[in-house]
Amino acid sequence: MSMSGNCYKLRLLLEQLGRDYRWIEVDSARGGTRTPAFLARNPNGRVPLIELEDGRVLVESNAILCWLAEGTGFVPADAWQRAQALSWMFFEQYSHEPYIAVARFIRGWTPVDSPRRADLPRLRERGHQALAVMERHLQSADWFAGAAYGIADIALFAYTHCAGDGGFDLSAYPRIGAWLERVRATPGFVPMPPLDDEATARLASTD
Amino acid sequence: MSMSGNCYKLRLLLEQLGRDYRWIEVDSARGGTRTPAFLARNPNGRVPLIELEDGRVLVESNAILCWLAEGTGFVPADAWQRAQALSWMFFEQYSHEPYIAVARFIRGWTPVDSPRRADLPRLRERGHQALAVMERHLQSADWFAGAAYGIADIALFAYTHCAGDGGFDLSAYPRIGAWLERVRATPGFVPMPPLDDEATARLASTD
Repeated sequence: MSMSGNCYKLRLLLEQLGRDYRWIEVDSARGGTRTPAFLARNPNGRVPLIELEDGRVLVESNAILCWLAEGTGFVPADAWQRAQALSWMFFEQYSHEPYIAVARFIRGWTPVDSPRRADLPRLRERGHQALAVMERHLQSADWFAGAAYGIADIALFAYTHCAGDGGFDLSAYPRIGAWLERVRATPGFVPMPPLDDEATARLASTD
Repeated sequence: MSMSGNCYKLRLLLEQLGRDYRWIEVDSARGGTRTPAFLARNPNGRVPLIELEDGRVLVESNAILCWLAEGTGFVPADAWQRAQALSWMFFEQYSHEPYIAVARFIRGWTPVDSPRRADLPRLRERGHQALAVMERHLQSADWFAGAAYGIADIALFAYTHCAGDGGFDLSAYPRIGAWLERVRATPGFVPMPPLDDEATARLASTD
């Protein structure tokens, strides 16, 4: 799903690795992850997944980043820094994505009268806590794990760069803003594809 | 925090590895993760963390499992199976723990009139979805990644074995039941410490 930050993580790394791949669009907002064919590949019903030429499947965006990046410069060579990269990737899935990505989804992909919109204040509070943790880390480091850009940065960039779609004002986080610019300047960087007209209109009309 | 499944993961692996360690109890239910000293170690305010003798800190239970197990038989030697182990560990933190562990926390560690108890039906529904995904995997495998017990099993055992505390009846999941017994039979297995009287009493008096 091109609009999903979790899917964008893979696109960004694959492009930066120069790997050949075939992108198959699955729209989870319209039931594409609930079909029998999809559930046979991922019984948990979530995008993204990768399928190798021999049919083997791997699910969970951050596990896929680890698999694709293994042995490349996108994973720290030092074991302790590799563990720190994983730590930030678990932080991303537990303390960041469930608030920042879900707020974005509710604002852009649910009806304007959805009862889920009542969750937005709580999601914003928790999302700002995650952003504050990131801002603090960036006081003393340019990247999230080790001395170079890598998979922890990709995992966190995916939903941080579009946090504004979830109603988050990033201007209070200057170090995050500078880090986003450093990511955008990495070799082979590709942006997330533009949103479709429907999501763009919903985001523009939502508080 | 001895009652935390996320902390228990580390105790179980450390015991099975035969590693020396010092356990420092921090009670997150009573503010122990919100002190300045704790937040200096983990700005995200969560247990567990490990601190090495030189003062370096690593947070996030599943990243700590990876660090402690690196190069041991608790991590699959095959790169694809290592990725599958990580995939299940991300599944655990995103699709399992936020429902099964949180339902247990609400039932055992919040007042019987807590407004959070209104969340329990939704948490149970999502938790059962996670258990169904696990049951399906165990139709064709004894362990979660590769041919042997390892860190993915430890990560999933932590809150699955005490899912009953969250109000989940595991009798509908016979393969999970058999897997729990296989984990308990692994060399050096140690159970989670018994609950304190207050949590035991709350769990006994809650629907």
